Amino acid sequence: MQRLAGSWRRRGRRVALVPTMGFLHEGHLSLIRRARRAVGSRGIVAVSLYVNPAQFAAGEDLSRYPRDLPRDTRLCRAEGVDVLFAPDDASMYPAAGGGFSTLVEETAVSRTMEGASRPTHFRGVTTVVGKLLHITQPDLAVFGAKDFQQAAVVRRMIRDLNFPVKLILAPTVREPDGLALSSRNNYLSPDERAQATILSRSIRFARARVRRAREPIPAASLKQELRKLIATQPAARVDYLEFFHAATFEPAPAAARGIHFALAVFVGRTRLIDNGRL
Amino acid sequence: MQRLAGSWRRRGRRVALVPTMGFLHEGHLSLIRRARRAVGSRGIVAVSLYVNPAQFAAGEDLSRYPRDLPRDTRLCRAEGVDVLFAPDDASMYPAAGGGFSTLVEETAVSRTMEGASRPTHFRGVTTVVGKLLHITQPDLAVFGAKDFQQAAVVRRMIRDLNFPVKLILAPTVREPDGLALSSRNNYLSPDERAQATILSRSIRFARARVRRAREPIPAASLKQELRKLIATQPAARVDYLEFFHAATFEPAPAAARGIHFALAVFVGRTRLIDNGRL
Repeated sequence: MQRLAGSWRRRGRRVALVPTMGFLHEGHLSLIRRARRAVGSRGIVAVSLYVNPAQFAAGEDLSRYPRDLPRDTRLCRAEGVDVLFAPDDASMYPAAGGGFSTLVEETAVSRTMEGASRPTHFRGVTTVVGKLLHITQPDLAVFGAKDFQQAAVVRRMIRDLNFPVKLILAPTVREPDGLALSSRNNYLSPDERAQATILSRSIRFARARVRRAREPIPAASLKQELRKLIATQPAARVDYLEFFHAATFEPAPAAARGIHFALAVFVGRTRLIDNGRL
Repeated sequence: MQRLAGSWRRRGRRVALVPTMGFLHEGHLSLIRRARRAVGSRGIVAVSLYVNPAQFAAGEDLSRYPRDLPRDTRLCRAEGVDVLFAPDDASMYPAAGGGFSTLVEETAVSRTMEGASRPTHFRGVTTVVGKLLHITQPDLAVFGAKDFQQAAVVRRMIRDLNFPVKLILAPTVREPDGLALSSRNNYLSPDERAQATILSRSIRFARARVRRAREPIPAASLKQELRKLIATQPAARVDYLEFFHAATFEPAPAAARGIHFALAVFVGRTRLIDNGRL
Protein backbone atom coordinates (compact mmCIF):
# COMPACT_ATOMS: atom_id res chain seq x y z
CA MET A 1 0.00 0.00 0.00
CA GLN A 2 2.80 2.41 0.90
CA ARG A 3 4.61 1.71 -2.38
CA LEU A 4 1.40 2.34 -4.29
CA ALA A 5 0.89 5.60 -2.40
CA GLY A 6 4.45 6.63 -3.24
CA SER A 7 3.77 6.05 -6.93
CA TRP A 8 0.63 8.23 -6.76
CA ARG A 9 2.65 11.01 -5.19
CA ARG A 10 5.38 10.79 -7.78
CA ARG A 11 2.75 11.09 -10.49
CA GLY A 12 1.23 14.13 -8.78
CA ARG A 13 -2.15 12.50 -8.12
CA ARG A 14 -4.24 14.10 -5.40
CA VAL A 15 -5.14 11.53 -2.75
CA ALA A 16 -7.93 11.56 -0.16
CA LEU A 17 -8.13 9.00 2.62
CA VAL A 18 -11.37 7.98 4.33
CA PRO A 19 -10.42 5.99 7.43
CA THR A 20 -13.19 3.63 8.58
CA MET A 21 -13.78 0.59 10.74
CA GLY A 22 -15.90 -0.90 7.96
CA PHE A 23 -19.52 -2.12 8.05
CA LEU A 24 -20.14 0.90 5.87
CA HIS A 25 -23.37 2.87 6.02
CA GLU A 26 -24.65 6.03 4.35
CA GLY A 27 -22.53 8.12 6.73
CA HIS A 28 -19.34 6.50 5.42
CA LEU A 29 -20.59 6.79 1.85
CA SER A 30 -21.12 10.51 2.34
CA LEU A 31 -17.46 10.78 3.47
CA ILE A 32 -16.38 8.88 0.35
CA ARG A 33 -18.40 11.25 -1.85
CA ARG A 34 -16.90 14.23 -0.02
CA ALA A 35 -13.43 12.79 -0.67
CA ARG A 36 -14.20 12.36 -4.37
CA ARG A 37 -15.47 15.93 -4.60
CA ALA A 38 -12.22 17.12 -2.99
CA VAL A 39 -9.79 15.28 -5.27
CA GLY A 40 -11.81 15.29 -8.50
CA SER A 41 -12.21 12.51 -11.03
CA ARG A 42 -8.44 12.29 -11.68
CA GLY A 43 -7.66 12.06 -7.97
CA ILE A 44 -7.45 8.96 -5.83
CA VAL A 45 -9.99 8.05 -3.15
CA ALA A 46 -8.59 5.51 -0.69
CA VAL A 47 -10.75 3.94 2.02
CA SER A 48 -9.08 2.19 4.92
CA LEU A 49 -11.04 -0.47 6.71
CA TYR A 50 -9.54 -1.56 9.98
CA VAL A 51 -11.17 -2.39 13.30
CA ASN A 52 -8.28 -1.11 15.38
CA PRO A 53 -7.90 -3.12 18.62
CA ALA A 54 -5.78 -0.35 20.17
CA GLN A 55 -8.78 1.98 20.44
CA PHE A 56 -10.97 -0.54 22.27
CA ALA A 57 -10.51 -1.09 26.00
CA ALA A 58 -10.93 -4.49 27.63
CA GLY A 59 -14.65 -5.19 28.01
CA GLU A 60 -15.65 -2.98 25.07
CA ASP A 61 -17.22 -4.31 21.89
CA LEU A 62 -14.10 -5.20 19.86
CA SER A 63 -15.02 -8.87 19.42
CA ARG A 64 -18.64 -8.26 18.44
CA TYR A 65 -17.99 -5.14 16.32
CA PRO A 66 -19.90 -5.83 13.07
CA ARG A 67 -17.84 -6.81 10.01
CA ASP A 68 -18.77 -7.56 6.40
CA LEU A 69 -15.82 -7.13 4.05
CA PRO A 70 -17.56 -8.49 0.91
CA ARG A 71 -20.43 -6.03 1.35
CA ASP A 72 -18.01 -3.15 2.14
CA THR A 73 -16.02 -4.03 -0.98
CA ARG A 74 -19.15 -3.90 -3.15
CA LEU A 75 -20.19 -0.57 -1.67
CA CYS A 76 -16.72 0.92 -2.25
CA ARG A 77 -16.67 -0.32 -5.82
CA ALA A 78 -20.11 1.17 -6.45
CA GLU A 79 -18.87 4.53 -5.12
CA GLY A 80 -15.83 4.48 -7.40
CA VAL A 81 -13.32 4.08 -4.58
CA ASP A 82 -9.84 3.54 -6.08
CA VAL A 83 -8.35 1.51 -3.25
CA LEU A 84 -9.83 -0.27 -0.25
CA PHE A 85 -7.01 -0.87 2.25
CA ALA A 86 -8.01 -3.56 4.75
CA PRO A 87 -4.91 -4.66 6.67
CA ASP A 88 -4.92 -7.37 9.33
CA ASP A 89 -3.72 -7.03 12.93
CA ALA A 90 -0.47 -8.87 12.23
CA SER A 91 0.58 -6.31 9.63
CA MET A 92 -0.54 -3.27 11.64
CA TYR A 93 0.93 -4.38 14.98
CA PRO A 94 3.63 -6.95 14.17
CA ALA A 95 4.83 -9.02 17.09
CA ALA A 96 8.28 -9.56 15.55
CA GLY A 97 11.39 -7.53 16.34
CA GLY A 98 10.49 -6.80 19.95
CA GLY A 99 6.84 -5.98 19.29
CA PHE A 100 4.99 -2.73 18.78
CA SER A 101 6.04 -0.01 21.21
CA THR A 102 5.34 3.47 19.80
CA LEU A 103 2.31 5.57 20.67
CA VAL A 104 1.01 8.91 19.48
CA GLU A 105 -0.89 10.70 22.20
CA GLU A 106 -2.79 13.98 22.21
CA THR A 107 -2.97 15.26 25.76
CA ALA A 108 -5.42 18.19 25.81
CA VAL A 109 -8.46 17.89 23.53
CA SER A 110 -8.50 14.12 24.16
CA ARG A 111 -8.98 14.34 27.92
CA THR A 112 -12.69 15.18 28.30
CA MET A 113 -15.88 13.37 27.22
CA GLU A 114 -14.93 10.29 25.14
CA GLY A 115 -11.41 10.50 26.55
CA ALA A 116 -12.69 10.56 30.13
CA SER A 117 -15.11 7.67 29.54
CA ARG A 118 -12.62 5.67 27.45
CA PRO A 119 -9.13 6.60 28.76
CA THR A 120 -7.00 4.75 26.19
CA HIS A 121 -9.36 5.24 23.25
CA PHE A 122 -7.90 8.36 21.63
CA ARG A 123 -4.32 7.16 22.06
CA GLY A 124 -5.35 4.16 19.99
CA VAL A 125 -7.02 6.44 17.44
CA THR A 126 -4.10 8.86 17.03
CA THR A 127 -1.61 6.01 16.79
CA VAL A 128 -3.52 4.16 14.09
CA VAL A 129 -4.43 7.32 12.18
CA GLY A 130 -0.75 8.32 12.24
CA LYS A 131 0.10 4.91 10.78
CA LEU A 132 -2.63 5.12 8.13
CA LEU A 133 -1.49 8.60 7.09
CA HIS A 134 2.08 7.34 6.66
CA ILE A 135 0.95 4.27 4.75
CA THR A 136 -1.41 6.07 2.35
CA GLN A 137 0.24 9.54 2.29
CA PRO A 138 -2.92 11.43 1.41
CA ASP A 139 -3.30 15.13 0.71
CA LEU A 140 -6.67 15.08 2.48
CA ALA A 141 -8.30 12.93 5.13
CA VAL A 142 -12.07 12.97 5.60
CA PHE A 143 -13.62 12.47 9.05
CA GLY A 144 -17.26 12.51 10.07
CA ALA A 145 -18.72 15.11 12.43
CA LYS A 146 -20.58 12.38 14.38
CA ASP A 147 -17.23 11.59 16.02
CA PHE A 148 -16.65 15.27 16.63
CA GLN A 149 -14.06 14.96 19.38
CA GLN A 150 -12.16 12.32 17.42
CA ALA A 151 -11.88 14.71 14.48
CA ALA A 152 -10.68 17.47 16.83
CA VAL A 153 -8.05 15.20 18.39
CA VAL A 154 -6.81 14.11 14.97
CA ARG A 155 -6.82 17.70 13.73
CA ARG A 156 -4.68 18.71 16.72
CA MET A 157 -2.30 15.80 16.08
CA ILE A 158 -1.98 16.79 12.41
CA ARG A 159 -1.20 20.37 13.36
CA ASP A 160 1.18 19.59 16.24
CA LEU A 161 3.16 16.95 14.37
CA ASN A 162 3.06 18.80 11.01
CA PHE A 163 1.53 15.90 9.08
CA PRO A 164 1.38 17.10 5.44
CA VAL A 165 -2.37 16.50 5.20
CA LYS A 166 -5.54 18.54 5.49
CA LEU A 167 -8.47 17.26 7.55
CA ILE A 168 -11.96 17.66 6.12
CA LEU A 169 -14.89 17.37 8.52
CA ALA A 170 -18.06 16.09 6.84
CA PRO A 171 -21.53 16.49 8.38
CA THR A 172 -23.31 13.75 10.32
CA VAL A 173 -25.79 11.72 8.29
CA ARG A 174 -29.05 10.92 10.10
CA GLU A 175 -32.00 8.57 9.77
CA PRO A 176 -35.30 10.32 8.96
CA ASP A 177 -36.17 10.26 12.69
CA GLY A 178 -32.91 11.99 13.64
CA LEU A 179 -30.75 9.08 14.80
CA ALA A 180 -27.14 9.63 13.73
CA LEU A 181 -25.90 6.77 11.54
CA SER A 182 -23.46 4.47 13.32
CA SER A 183 -22.35 0.90 12.84
CA ARG A 184 -23.27 0.42 16.49
CA ASN A 185 -26.96 1.12 15.76
CA ASN A 186 -26.82 -2.44 14.49
CA TYR A 187 -26.67 -3.66 18.12
CA LEU A 188 -30.05 -2.12 19.04
CA SER A 189 -33.21 -4.18 19.48
CA PRO A 190 -36.30 -2.70 17.77
CA ASP A 191 -37.45 -1.23 21.07
CA GLU A 192 -34.01 0.25 21.83
CA ARG A 193 -33.84 1.57 18.26
CA ALA A 194 -37.01 3.57 18.92
CA GLN A 195 -35.63 4.96 22.18
CA ALA A 196 -32.25 5.81 20.61
CA THR A 197 -33.71 8.94 19.01
CA ILE A 198 -33.36 10.46 22.48
CA LEU A 199 -29.81 11.61 21.58
CA SER A 200 -30.80 13.73 18.59
CA ARG A 201 -33.93 14.88 20.40
CA SER A 202 -31.70 16.07 23.25
CA ILE A 203 -29.65 18.14 20.82
CA ARG A 204 -32.76 19.66 19.28
CA PHE A 205 -34.19 20.32 22.75
CA ALA A 206 -31.00 22.08 23.90
CA ARG A 207 -30.80 24.07 20.68
CA ALA A 208 -34.41 25.20 21.00
CA ARG A 209 -33.99 26.15 24.68
CA VAL A 210 -30.86 28.20 23.88
CA ARG A 211 -32.46 29.96 20.92
CA ARG A 212 -35.59 30.88 22.91
CA ALA A 213 -33.61 32.06 25.96
CA ARG A 214 -32.80 35.77 26.39
CA GLU A 215 -29.41 34.96 27.93
CA PRO A 216 -27.01 32.02 28.29
CA ILE A 217 -28.44 29.11 30.32
CA PRO A 218 -26.20 27.81 33.13
CA ALA A 219 -24.82 24.49 31.90
CA ALA A 220 -25.74 22.67 35.11
CA SER A 221 -29.40 23.62 34.91
CA LEU A 222 -29.75 22.76 31.21
CA LYS A 223 -28.05 19.42 31.93
CA GLN A 224 -30.69 18.77 34.59
CA GLU A 225 -33.48 19.39 32.09
CA LEU A 226 -31.76 17.11 29.59
CA ARG A 227 -31.32 14.34 32.14
CA LYS A 228 -35.06 14.52 32.83
CA LEU A 229 -35.81 14.32 29.12
CA ILE A 230 -33.47 11.35 28.62
CA ALA A 231 -34.95 9.61 31.70
CA THR A 232 -38.28 9.36 29.84
CA GLN A 233 -36.65 6.52 27.86
CA PRO A 234 -36.43 3.49 30.13
CA ALA A 235 -33.50 1.86 28.26
CA ALA A 236 -31.43 5.09 28.25
CA ARG A 237 -28.67 5.87 30.73
CA VAL A 238 -26.55 9.04 30.41
CA ASP A 239 -22.76 8.59 30.24
CA TYR A 240 -22.01 12.31 29.83
CA LEU A 241 -23.57 15.58 28.67
CA GLU A 242 -21.14 18.37 27.84
CA PHE A 243 -21.31 21.98 26.65
CA PHE A 244 -18.01 23.26 25.28
CA HIS A 245 -16.26 25.63 22.90
CA ALA A 246 -15.72 23.72 19.64
CA ALA A 247 -12.41 25.47 18.88
CA THR A 248 -10.69 24.72 22.19
CA PHE A 249 -12.80 21.97 23.76
CA GLU A 250 -12.91 23.98 26.96
CA PRO A 251 -16.12 23.36 28.91
CA ALA A 252 -18.66 26.17 28.66
CA PRO A 253 -20.16 27.25 31.99
CA ALA A 254 -23.30 28.31 30.15
CA ALA A 255 -25.10 27.11 27.04
CA ALA A 256 -25.69 29.69 24.33
CA ARG A 257 -25.82 29.98 20.55
CA GLY A 258 -22.55 28.77 19.01
CA ILE A 259 -21.65 26.59 21.99
CA HIS A 260 -21.21 22.93 21.08
CA PHE A 261 -23.15 20.16 22.84
CA ALA A 262 -22.10 16.52 22.92
CA LEU A 263 -23.53 13.53 24.72
CA ALA A 264 -22.98 9.82 25.21
CA VAL A 265 -25.92 7.65 26.24
CA PHE A 266 -26.19 3.93 26.80
CA VAL A 267 -29.33 2.55 25.21
CA GLY A 268 -29.51 -0.89 26.71
CA ARG A 269 -25.95 -2.18 26.44
CA THR A 270 -25.15 -0.05 23.40
CA ARG A 271 -23.23 3.18 23.91
CA LEU A 272 -24.20 5.87 21.41
CA ILE A 273 -22.80 9.38 20.89
CA ASP A 274 -24.03 12.48 19.13
CA ASN A 275 -23.28 16.20 19.05
CA GLY A 276 -24.34 19.47 17.53
CA ARG A 277 -23.81 23.18 17.56
CA LEU A 278 -26.43 25.09 19.55
CA MET B 1 9.93 24.15 4.24
CA GLN B 2 7.06 21.68 3.89
CA ARG B 3 5.95 23.25 0.60
CA LEU B 4 9.51 23.05 -0.70
CA ALA B 5 9.72 19.39 0.35
CA GLY B 6 6.43 18.72 -1.46
CA SER B 7 7.85 20.21 -4.65
CA TRP B 8 10.95 17.97 -4.40
CA ARG B 9 8.72 14.94 -4.05
CA ARG B 10 6.57 15.90 -7.01
CA ARG B 11 9.73 16.23 -9.09
CA GLY B 12 10.93 12.79 -7.94
CA ARG B 13 14.06 14.11 -6.21
CA ARG B 14 15.57 11.81 -3.62
CA VAL B 15 15.84 13.59 -0.26
CA ALA B 16 18.04 12.83 2.75
CA LEU B 17 17.58 14.58 6.09
CA VAL B 18 20.37 15.04 8.62
CA PRO B 19 18.73 16.18 11.87
CA THR B 20 21.15 18.12 14.13
CA MET B 21 21.18 20.49 17.07
CA GLY B 22 23.80 22.61 15.29
CA PHE B 23 27.28 23.65 16.42
CA LEU B 24 28.44 21.28 13.72
CA HIS B 25 31.62 19.24 14.03
CA GLU B 26 33.29 16.59 11.88
CA GLY B 27 30.80 14.02 13.17
CA HIS B 28 27.91 16.00 11.69
CA LEU B 29 29.86 16.60 8.49
CA SER B 30 30.38 12.86 8.12
CA LEU B 31 26.58 12.41 8.36
CA ILE B 32 26.12 15.06 5.68
CA ARG B 33 28.61 13.29 3.41
CA ARG B 34 26.85 9.98 4.06
CA ALA B 35 23.55 11.64 3.10
CA ARG B 36 25.06 12.96 -0.13
CA ARG B 37 26.45 9.56 -1.00
CA ALA B 38 22.99 8.07 -0.45
CA VAL B 39 21.01 10.51 -2.63
CA GLY B 40 23.66 11.29 -5.26
CA SER B 41 24.50 14.61 -6.86
CA ARG B 42 20.96 15.08 -8.20
CA GLY B 43 19.41 14.37 -4.81
CA ILE B 44 18.66 16.81 -2.02
CA VAL B 45 20.57 16.93 1.27
CA ALA B 46 18.62 18.79 3.95
CA VAL B 47 20.12 19.56 7.36
CA SER B 48 17.85 20.54 10.20
CA LEU B 49 19.33 22.61 12.97
CA TYR B 50 17.14 22.86 16.03
CA VAL B 51 18.02 22.77 19.72
CA ASN B 52 14.80 21.06 20.76
CA PRO B 53 13.71 22.18 24.24
CA ALA B 54 11.38 19.16 24.57
CA GLN B 55 14.32 16.76 24.83
CA PHE B 56 16.02 18.66 27.67
CA ALA B 57 14.78 18.26 31.24
CA ALA B 58 14.75 21.13 33.75
CA GLY B 59 18.30 21.60 35.05
CA GLU B 60 19.93 20.19 31.93
CA ASP B 61 22.10 22.26 29.57
CA LEU B 62 19.45 23.72 27.24
CA SER B 63 20.33 27.35 27.97
CA ARG B 64 24.08 26.91 27.62
CA TYR B 65 23.98 24.47 24.70
CA PRO B 66 26.51 25.93 22.19
CA ARG B 67 25.10 27.72 19.14
CA ASP B 68 26.74 29.35 16.11
CA LEU B 69 24.36 29.62 13.17
CA PRO B 70 26.66 31.70 10.92
CA ARG B 71 29.45 29.13 11.27
CA ASP B 72 27.01 26.21 10.78
CA THR B 73 25.68 27.91 7.65
CA ARG B 74 29.19 28.27 6.22
CA LEU B 75 29.99 24.62 6.97
CA CYS B 76 26.76 23.42 5.33
CA ARG B 77 27.41 25.55 2.26
CA ALA B 78 30.94 24.17 1.99
CA GLU B 79 29.55 20.62 2.14
CA GLY B 80 27.06 21.33 -0.63
CA VAL B 81 24.00 21.04 1.62
CA ASP B 82 20.91 22.06 -0.38
CA VAL B 83 18.79 23.33 2.51
CA LEU B 84 19.57 24.24 6.10
CA PHE B 85 16.28 24.24 8.03
CA ALA B 86 16.68 26.17 11.28
CA PRO B 87 13.22 26.82 12.76
CA ASP B 88 12.59 28.76 15.97
CA ASP B 89 10.68 27.53 19.02
CA ALA B 90 7.59 29.58 18.15
CA SER B 91 7.17 27.80 14.84
CA MET B 92 7.95 24.32 16.18
CA TYR B 93 5.79 24.57 19.31
CA PRO B 94 3.25 27.33 18.66
CA ALA B 95 1.40 28.61 21.70
CA ALA B 96 -1.65 29.65 19.66
CA GLY B 97 -4.80 27.55 19.26
CA GLY B 98 -4.64 25.90 22.66
CA GLY B 99 -0.91 25.18 22.57
CA PHE B 100 1.09 22.13 21.64
CA SER B 101 -0.37 18.89 23.03
CA THR B 102 0.71 15.86 20.96
CA LEU B 103 3.55 13.53 21.86
CA VAL B 104 5.15 10.58 20.14
CA GLU B 105 6.50 8.08 22.64
CA GLU B 106 8.46 4.88 22.18
CA THR B 107 7.93 2.72 25.25
CA ALA B 108 10.40 -0.19 25.05
CA VAL B 109 13.84 0.62 23.61
CA SER B 110 13.64 4.09 25.17
CA ARG B 111 13.33 2.90 28.77
CA THR B 112 16.90 1.90 29.67
CA MET B 113 20.19 3.84 29.79
CA GLU B 114 19.61 7.38 28.42
CA GLY B 115 15.89 6.91 28.98
CA ALA B 116 16.39 5.89 32.60
CA SER B 117 18.80 8.77 33.28
CA ARG B 118 16.73 11.30 31.31
CA PRO B 119 13.09 10.13 31.59
CA THR B 120 11.49 12.66 29.20
CA HIS B 121 14.41 12.87 26.77
CA PHE B 122 13.40 10.32 24.14
CA ARG B 123 9.78 11.45 24.13
CA GLY B 124 11.13 14.85 23.14
CA VAL B 125 13.35 13.27 20.50
CA THR B 126 10.67 11.11 18.89
CA THR B 127 8.19 14.00 18.89
CA VAL B 128 10.57 16.42 17.21
CA VAL B 129 11.94 13.83 14.77
CA GLY B 130 8.36 12.96 13.82
CA LYS B 131 7.73 16.66 13.14
CA LEU B 132 10.95 17.06 11.14
CA LEU B 133 10.16 13.98 9.03
CA HIS B 134 6.71 15.41 8.22
CA ILE B 135 8.13 18.84 7.43
CA THR B 136 10.98 17.67 5.19
CA GLN B 137 9.48 14.37 3.89
CA PRO B 138 12.80 12.68 3.24
CA ASP B 139 13.43 9.25 1.70
CA LEU B 140 16.36 8.78 4.08
CA ALA B 141 17.34 10.13 7.48
CA VAL B 142 20.93 9.87 8.69
CA PHE B 143 21.71 9.44 12.40
CA GLY B 144 25.07 9.06 14.12
CA ALA B 145 26.10 5.90 15.98
CA LYS B 146 27.43 7.99 18.88
CA ASP B 147 23.78 8.40 19.95
CA PHE B 148 23.19 4.70 19.47
CA GLN B 149 20.08 4.36 21.60
CA GLN B 150 18.55 7.46 20.03
CA ALA B 151 18.96 5.91 16.59
CA ALA B 152 17.39 2.66 17.84
CA VAL B 153 14.43 4.53 19.35
CA VAL B 154 13.89 6.50 16.14
CA ARG B 155 14.25 3.34 14.05
CA ARG B 156 11.57 1.67 16.18
CA MET B 157 9.29 4.70 15.83
CA ILE B 158 9.75 4.70 12.06
CA ARG B 159 8.91 1.01 11.87
CA ASP B 160 5.95 1.08 14.30
CA LEU B 161 4.32 4.18 12.81
CA ASN B 162 5.17 3.26 9.18
CA PHE B 163 6.99 6.51 8.42
CA PRO B 164 7.92 6.28 4.70
CA VAL B 165 11.61 6.84 5.40
CA LYS B 166 14.73 4.70 5.81
CA LEU B 167 17.13 5.32 8.69
CA ILE B 168 20.86 5.21 7.95
CA LEU B 169 23.21 4.81 10.91
CA ALA B 170 26.62 6.40 10.31
CA PRO B 171 29.71 5.54 12.38
CA THR B 172 30.97 7.63 15.29
CA VAL B 173 33.75 10.05 14.41
CA ARG B 174 36.54 10.28 17.01
CA GLU B 175 39.43 12.56 17.91
CA PRO B 176 42.87 11.00 17.38
CA ASP B 177 42.96 10.07 21.08
CA GLY B 178 39.63 8.25 20.85
CA LEU B 179 37.19 10.83 22.27
CA ALA B 180 33.89 10.66 20.36
CA LEU B 181 33.05 14.01 18.77
CA SER B 182 30.22 15.83 20.53
CA SER B 183 29.14 19.44 20.77
CA ARG B 184 29.25 18.94 24.53
CA ASN B 185 33.05 18.35 24.43
CA ASN B 186 33.08 22.13 24.12
CA TYR B 187 32.12 22.38 27.83
CA LEU B 188 35.29 20.57 29.00
CA SER B 189 38.23 22.36 30.63
CA PRO B 190 41.64 21.29 29.25
CA ASP B 191 42.13 18.99 32.23
CA GLU B 192 38.65 17.47 31.84
CA ARG B 193 39.26 17.10 28.11
CA ALA B 194 42.30 14.93 28.88
CA GLN B 195 40.31 12.78 31.32
CA ALA B 196 37.35 12.46 28.89
CA THR B 197 39.21 9.80 26.90
CA ILE B 198 38.19 7.44 29.70
CA LEU B 199 34.95 6.66 27.82
CA SER B 200 36.58 5.35 24.66
CA ARG B 201 39.33 3.70 26.73
CA SER B 202 36.57 1.87 28.65
CA ILE B 203 35.14 0.55 25.40
CA ARG B 204 38.56 -0.60 24.20
CA PHE B 205 39.23 -2.16 27.61
CA ALA B 206 35.93 -4.07 27.58
CA ARG B 207 36.47 -5.19 23.99
CA ALA B 208 39.98 -6.45 24.76
CA ARG B 209 38.81 -8.28 27.89
CA VAL B 210 36.00 -9.99 25.98
CA ARG B 211 38.23 -10.97 23.08
CA ARG B 212 40.88 -12.43 25.36
CA ALA B 213 38.36 -14.34 27.52
CA ARG B 214 37.59 -17.97 26.78
CA GLU B 215 33.93 -17.54 27.77
CA PRO B 216 31.42 -14.72 28.36
CA ILE B 217 32.31 -12.48 31.31
CA PRO B 218 29.50 -11.87 33.82
CA ALA B 219 28.32 -8.31 33.23
CA ALA B 220 28.47 -7.41 36.91
CA SER B 221 32.12 -8.35 37.25
CA LEU B 222 33.22 -6.57 34.05
CA LYS B 223 31.30 -3.49 35.21
CA GLN B 224 33.29 -3.61 38.46
CA GLU B 225 36.55 -3.64 36.52
CA LEU B 226 35.34 -0.76 34.38
CA ARG B 227 34.28 1.28 37.41
CA LYS B 228 37.80 0.85 38.80
CA LEU B 229 39.31 1.95 35.50
CA ILE B 230 37.05 5.01 35.31
CA ALA B 231 37.79 5.87 38.96
CA THR B 232 41.42 6.48 37.95
CA GLN B 233 40.16 9.77 36.48
CA PRO B 234 39.39 12.14 39.36
CA ALA B 235 36.87 14.27 37.40
CA ALA B 236 34.92 11.21 36.13
CA ARG B 237 31.73 9.88 37.68
CA VAL B 238 29.83 6.96 36.13
CA ASP B 239 26.16 7.52 35.30
CA TYR B 240 25.60 4.05 33.80
CA LEU B 241 27.47 1.16 32.20
CA GLU B 242 25.36 -1.27 30.19
CA PHE B 243 25.87 -4.44 28.18
CA PHE B 244 22.96 -5.25 25.87
CA HIS B 245 21.82 -6.90 22.65
CA ALA B 246 21.91 -4.22 19.95
CA ALA B 247 18.89 -5.62 18.10
CA THR B 248 16.51 -5.71 21.05
CA PHE B 249 18.16 -3.49 23.69
CA GLU B 250 17.66 -6.26 26.21
CA PRO B 251 20.37 -6.24 28.89
CA ALA B 252 22.99 -8.96 28.46
CA PRO B 253 23.80 -10.89 31.63
CA ALA B 254 27.29 -11.52 30.27
CA ALA B 255 29.67 -9.60 28.04
CA ALA B 256 30.88 -11.41 24.92
CA ARG B 257 31.81 -10.74 21.31
CA GLY B 258 28.91 -9.07 19.50
CA ILE B 259 27.32 -7.72 22.67
CA HIS B 260 26.97 -3.93 22.65
CA PHE B 261 28.41 -1.76 25.42
CA ALA B 262 27.25 1.76 26.22
CA LEU B 263 28.19 4.15 28.97
CA ALA B 264 27.45 7.63 30.29
CA VAL B 265 30.04 9.38 32.42
CA PHE B 266 30.07 12.82 33.96
CA VAL B 267 33.44 14.48 33.46
CA GLY B 268 33.22 17.42 35.81
CA ARG B 269 29.75 18.83 35.14
CA THR B 270 29.66 17.57 31.57
CA ARG B 271 27.76 14.38 30.82
CA LEU B 272 29.31 12.38 27.96
CA ILE B 273 28.15 9.16 26.28
CA ASP B 274 29.81 6.59 24.07
CA ASN B 275 29.21 3.03 22.90
CA GLY B 276 30.65 0.24 20.83
CA ARG B 277 30.25 -3.35 19.82
CA LEU B 278 32.45 -5.77 21.76
